[in-house]
Amino acid sequence: MKKILVIHGPNLNLLGEREVDQYGTVTMDKINSDLTKLASELGVEIETFQSNVEGEIVNAIQKAKNSFSAVIINPGGYTHYSVAIRDAISAVKLPAVEVHLSNIYSREEFRQKSVIAPVCAGQITGFGADSYLLGLRAAAAILK
Amino acid sequence: MKKILVIHGPNLNLLGEREVDQYGTVTMDKINSDLTKLASELGVEIETFQSNVEGEIVNAIQKAKNSFSAVIINPGGYTHYSVAIRDAISAVKLPAVEVHLSNIYSREEFRQKSVIAPVCAGQITGFGADSYLLGLRAAAAILK
Amino acid sequence: MKKILVIHGPNLNLLGEREVDQYGTVTMDKINSDLTKLASELGVEIETFQSNVEGEIVNAIQKAKNSFSAVIINPGGYTHYSVAIRDAISAVKLPAVEVHLSNIYSREEFRQKSVIAPVCAGQITGFGADSYLLGLRAAAAILK
Amino acid sequence: MKKILVIHGPNLNLLGEREVDQYGTVTMDKINSDLTKLASELGVEIETFQSNVEGEIVNAIQKAKNSFSAVIINPGGYTHYSVAIRDAISAVKLPAVEVHLSNIYSREEFRQKSVIAPVCAGQITGFGADSYLLGLRAAAAILK
Amino acid sequence: MKKILVIHGPNLNLLGEREVDQYGTVTMDKINSDLTKLASELGVEIETFQSNVEGEIVNAIQKAKNSFSAVIINPGGYTHYSVAIRDAISAVKLPAVEVHLSNIYSREEFRQKSVIAPVCAGQITGFGADSYLLGLRAAAAILK
Amino acid sequence: MKKILVIHGPNLNLLGEREVDQYGTVTMDKINSDLTKLASELGVEIETFQSNVEGEIVNAIQKAKNSFSAVIINPGGYTHYSVAIRDAISAVKLPAVEVHLSNIYSREEFRQKSVIAPVCAGQITGFGADSYLLGLRAAAAILK
Amino acid sequence: MKKILVIHGPNLNLLGEREVDQYGTVTMDKINSDLTKLASELGVEIETFQSNVEGEIVNAIQKAKNSFSAVIINPGGYTHYSVAIRDAISAVKLPAVEVHLSNIYSREEFRQKSVIAPVCAGQITGFGADSYLLGLRAAAAILK
Amino acid sequence: MKKILVIHGPNLNLLGEREVDQYGTVTMDKINSDLTKLASELGVEIETFQSNVEGEIVNAIQKAKNSFSAVIINPGGYTHYSVAIRDAISAVKLPAVEVHLSNIYSREEFRQKSVIAPVCAGQITGFGADSYLLGLRAAAAILK
Amino acid sequence: MKKILVIHGPNLNLLGEREVDQYGTVTMDKINSDLTKLASELGVEIETFQSNVEGEIVNAIQKAKNSFSAVIINPGGYTHYSVAIRDAISAVKLPAVEVHLSNIYSREEFRQKSVIAPVCAGQITGFGADSYLLGLRAAAAILK
Amino acid sequence: MKKILVIHGPNLNLLGEREVDQYGTVTMDKINSDLTKLASELGVEIETFQSNVEGEIVNAIQKAKNSFSAVIINPGGYTHYSVAIRDAISAVKLPAVEVHLSNIYSREEFRQKSVIAPVCAGQITGFGADSYLLGLRAAAAILK
Amino acid sequence: MKKILVIHGPNLNLLGEREVDQYGTVTMDKINSDLTKLASELGVEIETFQSNVEGEIVNAIQKAKNSFSAVIINPGGYTHYSVAIRDAISAVKLPAVEVHLSNIYSREEFRQKSVIAPVCAGQITGFGADSYLLGLRAAAAILK
Amino acid sequence: MKKILVIHGPNLNLLGEREVDQYGTVTMDKINSDLTKLASELGVEIETFQSNVEGEIVNAIQKAKNSFSAVIINPGGYTHYSVAIRDAISAVKLPAVEVHLSNIYSREEFRQKSVIAPVCAGQITGFGADSYLLGLRAAAAILK
Repeated sequence: MKKILVIHGPNLNLLGEREVDQYGTVTMDKINSDLTKLASELGVEIETFQSNVEGEIVNAIQKAKNSFSAVIINPGGYTHYSVAIRDAISAVKLPAVEVHLSNIYSREEFRQKSVIAPVCAGQITGFGADSYLLGLRAAAAILK
Repeated sequence: MKKILVIHGPNLNLLGEREVDQYGTVTMDKINSDLTKLASELGVEIETFQSNVEGEIVNAIQKAKNSFSAVIINPGGYTHYSVAIRDAISAVKLPAVEVHLSNIYSREEFRQKSVIAPVCAGQITGFGADSYLLGLRAAAAILK
Repeated sequence: MKKILVIHGPNLNLLGEREVDQYGTVTMDKINSDLTKLASELGVEIETFQSNVEGEIVNAIQKAKNSFSAVIINPGGYTHYSVAIRDAISAVKLPAVEVHLSNIYSREEFRQKSVIAPVCAGQITGFGADSYLLGLRAAAAILK
Repeated sequence: MKKILVIHGPNLNLLGEREVDQYGTVTMDKINSDLTKLASELGVEIETFQSNVEGEIVNAIQKAKNSFSAVIINPGGYTHYSVAIRDAISAVKLPAVEVHLSNIYSREEFRQKSVIAPVCAGQITGFGADSYLLGLRAAAAILK
Repeated sequence: MKKILVIHGPNLNLLGEREVDQYGTVTMDKINSDLTKLASELGVEIETFQSNVEGEIVNAIQKAKNSFSAVIINPGGYTHYSVAIRDAISAVKLPAVEVHLSNIYSREEFRQKSVIAPVCAGQITGFGADSYLLGLRAAAAILK
Repeated sequence: MKKILVIHGPNLNLLGEREVDQYGTVTMDKINSDLTKLASELGVEIETFQSNVEGEIVNAIQKAKNSFSAVIINPGGYTHYSVAIRDAISAVKLPAVEVHLSNIYSREEFRQKSVIAPVCAGQITGFGADSYLLGLRAAAAILK
Repeated sequence: MKKILVIHGPNLNLLGEREVDQYGTVTMDKINSDLTKLASELGVEIETFQSNVEGEIVNAIQKAKNSFSAVIINPGGYTHYSVAIRDAISAVKLPAVEVHLSNIYSREEFRQKSVIAPVCAGQITGFGADSYLLGLRAAAAILK
Repeated sequence: MKKILVIHGPNLNLLGEREVDQYGTVTMDKINSDLTKLASELGVEIETFQSNVEGEIVNAIQKAKNSFSAVIINPGGYTHYSVAIRDAISAVKLPAVEVHLSNIYSREEFRQKSVIAPVCAGQITGFGADSYLLGLRAAAAILK
Repeated sequence: MKKILVIHGPNLNLLGEREVDQYGTVTMDKINSDLTKLASELGVEIETFQSNVEGEIVNAIQKAKNSFSAVIINPGGYTHYSVAIRDAISAVKLPAVEVHLSNIYSREEFRQKSVIAPVCAGQITGFGADSYLLGLRAAAAILK
Repeated sequence: MKKILVIHGPNLNLLGEREVDQYGTVTMDKINSDLTKLASELGVEIETFQSNVEGEIVNAIQKAKNSFSAVIINPGGYTHYSVAIRDAISAVKLPAVEVHLSNIYSREEFRQKSVIAPVCAGQITGFGADSYLLGLRAAAAILK
Repeated sequence: MKKILVIHGPNLNLLGEREVDQYGTVTMDKINSDLTKLASELGVEIETFQSNVEGEIVNAIQKAKNSFSAVIINPGGYTHYSVAIRDAISAVKLPAVEVHLSNIYSREEFRQKSVIAPVCAGQITGFGADSYLLGLRAAAAILK
Repeated sequence: MKKILVIHGPNLNLLGEREVDQYGTVTMDKINSDLTKLASELGVEIETFQSNVEGEIVNAIQKAKNSFSAVIINPGGYTHYSVAIRDAISAVKLPAVEVHLSNIYSREEFRQKSVIAPVCAGQITGFGADSYLLGLRAAAAILK
């Protein structure tokens, strides 16, 4: 069964506790369990990972190379400047799906530019926790 | 049953015939029939519309106000400058999902800016015909 | 008696129904009838026109050339990019007055630039439905 | 009876003598007397003030707070950089109408940006001395 | 015999009547008849089309796909922003020649950028009605 | 005993009356008396000055040269463009502390650039009336 | 007693050894002991933390949420791009005071923009080690 | 018989040998002989000149003043910065036609700006060696 | 005998005392007496004026209109933003010569743009006190 | 014997496996052993270090201060934004040589700006694995 | 006797013949003889040089190093981009005076930036042939 | 034996005499003899060339095509704008190594952009005369 790595970037561990207006009340654990459920429906397996450290996200992507077939990533604040994460995605050549809870295009100017999007298969933004579920469907479809 | 209007912008009627490298071989009709099928699974109804004329798209959105509950729109080339379409979406206050076949963030600079995204619920870009299907799921979820 | 063409651009047909915070509750019909009343006071005649289609607005301006002495135009969303409408106004050489309901200079960055203003006699912005009435007075004064 | 303060910014005291091509032959005194006449028609009272000194215009706006109900201002050259005047208008919370004799949007690039417009109710530009009269009507309408 | 579609964009129907300083006294009809004459010399056939509506120009280009071998287009005001027209040209994969009556590079800043040029074979600008005739020669040469 | 000149720029005389959301309810007089109290604690003397006129602030800084050892300045709206005030500070070579009531970096883009900061010892922004008191401590520390 | 977390960003552990012209001879330990002393005067408690790793600073801020009432942060080189640190501060909703030893506004262009300042209560820059002490006073005042 | 000077700028002497993908296999000599042939058809005379030295091109244009009636110029790499060549063209007041082999508007950003175009009668770009022949027709037409 | 008004802008009264490295040791009085001497050599008369207040400089220029034939102005810090001074110079239509002690083009970016230069006859910058003397010669030459 | 620290930034551990077109087939280990060989020829000693974590690279540079005489660094993706790494290099005052495998100036716009280069002795870019060897020679020469 | 080299850049040999509106009717020879006359009055000697070739101007400046004490240069079109000329001036360390006939600050945007000015003692612009004479006086004064 | 052409651009003939702080005391002749020595070690041959004239550098590159295998170039001031030199390098298709004595990335903004780098194999900057020697090694390695 194909495996997909789900990466939650910085501050996503606070989900559901922080800025509820912006990000909703769903927690990261709830998203992960919803993803697991959907994965089994779709016939894929997922593993989840969260880190606030840019370089550890790079490490995780590099390690994904051998055991995973695709990556779903919410790069959080690193979205807007992490060339290191971008390069890791290009390097491992796994299809990647970038997801965001909020619609980054209706927020501050600096949030409207993702340096990571150009090396992903696609991007899903604005649907709250559903962005992850749609992202999983997108990744699963790519793997078919 | 809730109805969703799917709008295909300029040149999308050529889908499957033109620039196959960029956009794939699926036709607009195929997308529409796939959408219809998925809609019935999801317990919603869809209607589709295509026009190359910016103002007719504005007209369609305005008319959607009374009979539809949400809009899925691929604004094509109008994505990057049509304040008129943007204003129509804001005006009717229906939740809108912007979709793109290709990943607009890995294309020319001018294609990386959508003037429409800020007034949509969210955006799905880069998954070929699947962008529409994911968009329908997103819209259906919003309507729940 | 001199005739003045009043052009309402895209989405202005929704006036009074949409975004009441931004644009107020007055309808386009009410504005038109107020304009008609004021016109007769000022000894001019008006005709009104609304379209969501950029090219039809161009057509209307071109046709105005022979039967009208001035134009009042609220270009709506086309304000910010329609070189076609701008060129039509230059071409017909009728004095034009650009009007806006809201103060475009206290809104989003992209709304603060009108490509049409440079070829108009002047611009009136921010006074709600009164912008039209002031615009009619301005046009009538120019015709004297 | 409600009172409106009319402020003429720098160099407007030279009106009618200078750059007749750009600004016409009407003098500031003539504008003031026309305004007085129209004011009495509209049932309001006006007082006029001219200064070339930015800070004195700030002083005038501050003092207007208690005895006036609205401000009409042609900020002249200060239009393009005076945050001090802008802040004075915000601070006193009187409705303000910005007027310009010439169409600032068909002049040099640097004249096309008003730092004051965003805190005004609206702006009227390009109708010569009529800009003031229209501005008075706009102000009177706001006070109703 | 190979057929070439000649497209006149917005306001070009006014040619010869409007802004004679900028565009000369030749009418669109005269250009069309000169083109017809030259076409027969060059052993090709032409058909001409004018519209002020962006989307109708898109329609015309799409329809050209089956019956024409090349396109000559003066996109008028749409030159500077119509990604929709640009995409239509890319999509139909016909060689296109962009022509302009005036030298767009000696006019306003915003007229100096064509979003359409990058997808054309080439551009001819500044030679009045001769721009069309040179464009026809260029198109005919490409077809050989 | 060392003397420090405290300069309040334009509109700060309205403090406590205007825009209470943005600037709080403390008046300029209250700030001045709090500063006087703290000064005596710190073993320095202060004198305060307010003007809405840019050039008078320049005059005040120039005169400070001989009788004061440091300057605390809230340049208000002049913060963003007054090279004249900047040059006066450089010229007199007194250590200067720039203070702002609100956090200028979380306000409009144009308020985020101070042309005066580069010639000051430092800047304190965002702590309401406390910004002045902290500024006085900073100035006193520099004088030791 | 209320607790305040003091965060020293990258390279601040070298203080007093490096670039003495720019940053002075005071060490980080000396700053920390001075802060401790002042804290007890002000009736608050402090804890200090230094890291060169962006993500560890994010971790520290997240953990501060439950046991601290405010944060004082010198983000060092991360000041200019760390959206991750910015988001952490927004997320925990603790009042934050940004401090800098040098006047960042009189240094290189790229140092004059803090992405973190907009989510802080305020910023204190340019007073050497005193910036921290003033920052502690500011934080203590906010907590009252 | 009227004479036209044809100027080939830097590196055009390598034509046909270098970068055949970009510029085709036609040599400069072949272009010159084709031009000579067409010139005689059109009843004009041509002279050709090539130099890699900017100042020698300036010299050539200056000398053209007395013996030539028009100039055709492919300024090569100098297109994008040579104000000296631009000024020479303005100075001699001969009608000039700028030609380019490749479509400069579909190449690198820096190649899309010609500092010379604004002082030419017009520009022809993208038709390979035909650009020169069309340029000669354009020049001959201007001389009629 | 023709009269020339010499205007010294803000902070120039400090000349010789302040920033000797940048501006030299000559005082404003010395410059004025040197100018008087040279004026009599050249057969013209001068009057000098200094103010730190932008609006007073505007007043001085306006008054110059009737009794002076030319203006020499060192606008000091106002050079870079005073549209009010610029407009005063345009309005009075006297030939103006802008002078600067230092070479503004080898200083900070923001000092390299004069908003006043475009309405002056010319500009002389960088020769210390000699800039004024050369400016007087230039003005005298214009008056001949 | 003088020691030089060689730092490999993020993703360089994948060298030889990833993006062979861009970076070649040489592995990091091979580069390291080639460097060791060359070092002994040049009479210096090297130590190598790789990390994907920005802050660990900062740590490594800080620790180099006492035991190394120079640094060779390929900052990988951090090249373009890591002010933290830049500050570490400035702080330790060791001569640094920046190296890149690919020619960063013929890649994407964002890769053409190094924030680290200004604090290095020099930069070597584009020669594949040889960039490191040339960098070692450069560093060794500086140490002589 | 001290010698000054006067350099006329590209197209200045056409002076008096070309663009008389912009540059006046004085010829380069007349300027040179006027300069010679003034030089002898001022007790200096001049030599003049004109070239259209950038590199020859560099050569001339380099050779001036040993036999001249100062340079007066009108760099013509090279003003705006010739870093080579700029570097030559820096390298020879002779005081240089940049002169322009027209006021470059009231012309096209691109003419308003001199890359050469920052390395000159000063600049004189806008006084026609008098710019050279004033430049000679400035140079002579520097040499005293 | 393979031959490499070493090109010294404008002002490099002054090396060792000019701006010793910036460029060191080594002369161009010394660099050339060091290069010759190293070349024979490396088993290649070099020839050196210097010119201040952009077009002559273009000529030299064109001629190198047949007799040389690689080019080492220090384009001096032409680095930042010479598209003509860039095009010559592309055209001859010889591998080129760009070298600079100083670290251009720690100098003025305009020196930080090389228009030539994108068409070179690589760039070496900042190591004084060693930049050339490293460049020769790089070129020799490429030729192997």
